[in-house]
Amino acid sequence: MEVKHTDMQSHSSALDRPAHPGIFPTREAGKSDHQLAERSVDFLVSVVLPAGGTGERTGLQTPKQFFPCLGRPLLSYTIQAFERVSWIQSIVVTVAKENMDLMTDIIQRFQHRKVRAVPGGSTRHRSICNGVLALGEGGAEERPADRPKVVIIHDAVRPFVEEDFLYKIAMAAKEQGCSESDFEFGTDCLHLALQYCGTNAKLIQGPPMLWKVTYKPDLAAAESIIKETLSQSACVITGGSAQAVTLADALQKSLNMELDVVPDLMGENARYLLKEWNFIQVSVNRSCLSEVEAILTDLEATNRALLHPLVVIWVHLSSSDELSIRGGMVEPAAIVDLASAAKHRNILLYGIQLHQSKDAERWERSVLNVAEIMSALIQERSPALVGQLLQA
Amino acid sequence: MEVKHTDMQSHSSALDRPAHPGIFPTREAGKSDHQLAERSVDFLVSVVLPAGGTGERTGLQTPKQFFPCLGRPLLSYTIQAFERVSWIQSIVVTVAKENMDLMTDIIQRFQHRKVRAVPGGSTRHRSICNGVLALGEGGAEERPADRPKVVIIHDAVRPFVEEDFLYKIAMAAKEQGCSESDFEFGTDCLHLALQYCGTNAKLIQGPPMLWKVTYKPDLAAAESIIKETLSQSACVITGGSAQAVTLADALQKSLNMELDVVPDLMGENARYLLKEWNFIQVSVNRSCLSEVEAILTDLEATNRALLHPLVVIWVHLSSSDELSIRGGMVEPAAIVDLASAAKHRNILLYGIQLHQSKDAERWERSVLNVAEIMSALIQERSPALVGQLLQA
Repeated sequence: MEVKHTDMQSHSSALDRPAHPGIFPTREAGKSDHQLAERSVDFLVSVVLPAGGTGERTGLQTPKQFFPCLGRPLLSYTIQAFERVSWIQSIVVTVAKENMDLMTDIIQRFQHRKVRAVPGGSTRHRSICNGVLALGEGGAEERPADRPKVVIIHDAVRPFVEEDFLYKIAMAAKEQGCSESDFEFGTDCLHLALQYCGTNAKLIQGPPMLWKVTYKPDLAAAESIIKETLSQSACVITGGSAQAVTLADALQKSLNMELDVVPDLMGENARYLLKEWNFIQVSVNRSCLSEVEAILTDLEATNRALLHPLVVIWVHLSSSDELSIRGGMVEPAAIVDLASAAKHRNILLYGIQLHQSKDAERWERSVLNVAEIMSALIQERSPALVGQLLQA
Repeated sequence: MEVKHTDMQSHSSALDRPAHPGIFPTREAGKSDHQLAERSVDFLVSVVLPAGGTGERTGLQTPKQFFPCLGRPLLSYTIQAFERVSWIQSIVVTVAKENMDLMTDIIQRFQHRKVRAVPGGSTRHRSICNGVLALGEGGAEERPADRPKVVIIHDAVRPFVEEDFLYKIAMAAKEQGCSESDFEFGTDCLHLALQYCGTNAKLIQGPPMLWKVTYKPDLAAAESIIKETLSQSACVITGGSAQAVTLADALQKSLNMELDVVPDLMGENARYLLKEWNFIQVSVNRSCLSEVEAILTDLEATNRALLHPLVVIWVHLSSSDELSIRGGMVEPAAIVDLASAAKHRNILLYGIQLHQSKDAERWERSVLNVAEIMSALIQERSPALVGQLLQA
């Protein structure tokens, strides 16, 4: 029987990691929810995330688990990956004492609900031990039935972890159990855990995809993966305009992402507000931004930009020949102010001005140009460029 | 005595890689040229870059050594890192037979001068062997003195290699020599090399910084490192205008990069054209783009954008109160056309429109905004956004 642990095989994990080291943010936008929902785990599973590192090796002032990726600490992505798994009951993060306040702040700010922070110990093993012991501290009213049956110990700096994999782990751990003889490699703290919590703790070997963020380039890679997963789908809101629908259809051919076209975000379409979509509002011959304002209000109401910066692109399609390409009616100050306010709520608003040419070739070029600009805006998520009214 | 090879310790190299896995592009912009120039190597050193991989593990259609980073194959960055070292005599790249044409094209397109491509063998070792043997094929006129004294065998997908390190390797290899007993780990091809070329080939262990690009996230990390190194310095051209100088001074405080301010690129200032600088042309109350056109012409003449996309930012500073913030005189079509032509020559031209407010607070905000936009444009190097006239 093997003793396994997610952080015991970093050597091979860095080497063997696959093209896509995880699909976690995709899940929200993707279509696998249904499939996963069928799976259920009928016993209690908890997680310990040791996050006591000091970040010495990264060359960064901030320990790597707290390093911001798109404005959110890496650790929060890892927490999110576990938190969204319905059958995971609770998560304990162990952090160095000096980072307890920071950790508490992160839990509050990103509204993590299943998470508790406890101080780590002087070694990694002691930290894990503290974490496992904390799981058993259910207070006076705790019954043995509340104790987790399986404890997953997972490196806080491996954010790309999939529900599928966790399911397999949990099932295997449950079936296989965990006897004392399993602990071979200095896992004395788990003996303690076994003794004091009455919990079957099992060290689980992570698959190659559990890629570990160790150095500065890894952070760039992680950010790039997160950006990529956030750039897989956009919802085009046409306001019911035939011209806007034509543009959306043309974009569908040029944009390398899933594109859904809807007249508005009312009724059933409101579901887009809850998923990881980007939003493209097309306004035809209307320079007013009221439709964009409505989207921003909706997004704020659903708290959608809490975990990721969200992209909203306003496309002003002018079809009148009298308007100059430069935009005629559009008042740039309006979008600047709106974007500036939205940025504080983690929503990135950009504008694109597009003139509907009657010349087919010219129109095609413009559409390609719009598609290229949209891809860049969505993928790069540059906060510096919000409020700009770009020309296509 | 140890047998060493840059690709024999990938396990630890991925783990141990430092915050900055190499400084190679920095060298051009940085100040270490002088220091390095003092070093000389008085014997012949050649390099074999095995690049026969098929890219199966990356999940990419293109083998990773040919994957484009900022429009140039990764392999070309590795070649460049060796080519710029004055005391390296020749470089042989071994590629799969089916990629020979592609390789020849890369050598021509990026004007690599010290490089020859030879077909690899059925195994990696045979490929290395072919490469080393090719070094000995100097033709009928070759004298033993032309043969390299030291051969460095280096993974083609580890682009971040420093001259400093290569110098240490070359000296150690020369001093230590290389006897037959050194070859222990299946390095039979080096026996052949020894036998047929009379060359002392030595397998060199790479330091941790020789980080290997293996999977897709690594490519993102590599691109991020390259972008970062290209974003360390900018040259502000003021045209001698006092207002432009004031702006440049203000930018110097806000922009997180080395900023040199010059009136023009004439005489001694022409040296900026030869280095890895980004260019910021400030035009005061002049909507015409002739100054930018001049820079583009100069950059083209020096072939500066051959290896990296180059950023040129045109700042139109309007000081007249009558002009609207939106820009008044500037004709956006002009910059669109210029940018479109420049893009074909790998130069990314962006415009920023800035109104010089007499309100100190407002001006300060504008400068911060300009600095933020410039940083984003320079760091992101987005081809999709060229020709845009952004508002600060």
